[in-house]
Amino acid sequence: MTPDPIQRLTAELAKLPGIGEKTAQRLAFHILRSKPGYARDLAAAIVDVTEKVRLCSVCCTLTEGDPCATCSDDRRDDRIVCVVENVPDLLAVERTREFRGRYHVLHGALSPLDGIGPDQLRVKELVRRLGTPPEGRERVEEVIVATNPDVEGEATALYLTRLLKPLGVRVTRIAQGVPMGGDLEYADQVTLARALAGRREI
Amino acid sequence: MTPDPIQRLTAELAKLPGIGEKTAQRLAFHILRSKPGYARDLAAAIVDVTEKVRLCSVCCTLTEGDPCATCSDDRRDDRIVCVVENVPDLLAVERTREFRGRYHVLHGALSPLDGIGPDQLRVKELVRRLGTPPEGRERVEEVIVATNPDVEGEATALYLTRLLKPLGVRVTRIAQGVPMGGDLEYADQVTLARALAGRREI
Repeated sequence: MTPDPIQRLTAELAKLPGIGEKTAQRLAFHILRSKPGYARDLAAAIVDVTEKVRLCSVCCTLTEGDPCATCSDDRRDDRIVCVVENVPDLLAVERTREFRGRYHVLHGALSPLDGIGPDQLRVKELVRRLGTPPEGRERVEEVIVATNPDVEGEATALYLTRLLKPLGVRVTRIAQGVPMGGDLEYADQVTLARALAGRREI
Repeated sequence: MTPDPIQRLTAELAKLPGIGEKTAQRLAFHILRSKPGYARDLAAAIVDVTEKVRLCSVCCTLTEGDPCATCSDDRRDDRIVCVVENVPDLLAVERTREFRGRYHVLHGALSPLDGIGPDQLRVKELVRRLGTPPEGRERVEEVIVATNPDVEGEATALYLTRLLKPLGVRVTRIAQGVPMGGDLEYADQVTLARALAGRREI
């Protein structure tokens, strides 16, 4: 009954997380009824995001220019690196305004059941960065592991501690101020700021 | 902090109904992390839907070919036309499998406060169709008004009754089996089938 292009769009939209068949159809009809130009702008933004955004060669965050804005910022402290699972987590830490060091984005957490081991994460890049700092930058003295306070995040923290301590770097973990089983991206700023302040040696 | 292309995509996605700023960002990151090709397929589907889908010249539903599949179907009864507000409503009626006549899609309901009068709806096309049936088709004898059972839908039903009765056509309204204030698109099939069967003259 529905024309093919609407069915195709509904099917593509339904692949997005949290979007069911019914919502996808509603969105498809909305796009169809929208002001001329909206569909084109949305499609261009989708193509753009995959074509123009790449990983920063230093910290592996998503960026348009390389190195990214955070890595290029001379006012930040080179000696301290905050390791996060994903970019939204980085943004959450940044929103606390409590951290002025550098970042490193792993793009996931260890999860053997899902086939995600250290090779699937940006761990090699972190180790390389600790050994040879980017030109004109100071050596990293402390790594704050700010992975999520859930099973995968804790496992990743443990793995990184064992890997990085022998390299002579201080490894810390954000305090258990963040509720267990939660998602860092949605932690409130005060809780996250406290977690940063109360970090302990592991 | 977030690269421009991600911000632009987030802004475009946040314009969709029911998608807030946070969900939009989550979807943007999901699109970025998806399998190669997904972003391109999604963008193509969005452009396609606006370029290939148009209104059927007979019943004004959304269609790829003109006339639409329903209007081209020789097994359907020309003498009875079901008038709905939108395409999802048409699909809801069709799902009951109780109706084998033709459809007419108004693309909205009368709502003077929103500036939607008869000229903003596909009423002219309905009147023309009642006066001169498409070639090789029988005359319309009954119009079932299946607009939503809310203020705008009832007003539209009343308006259509006054407009169409003088043309010598029987005008009926779906029964009040559908709950008042509800949305036809989400009515269950049994309720909607009963409403069709219990329609009364207005």
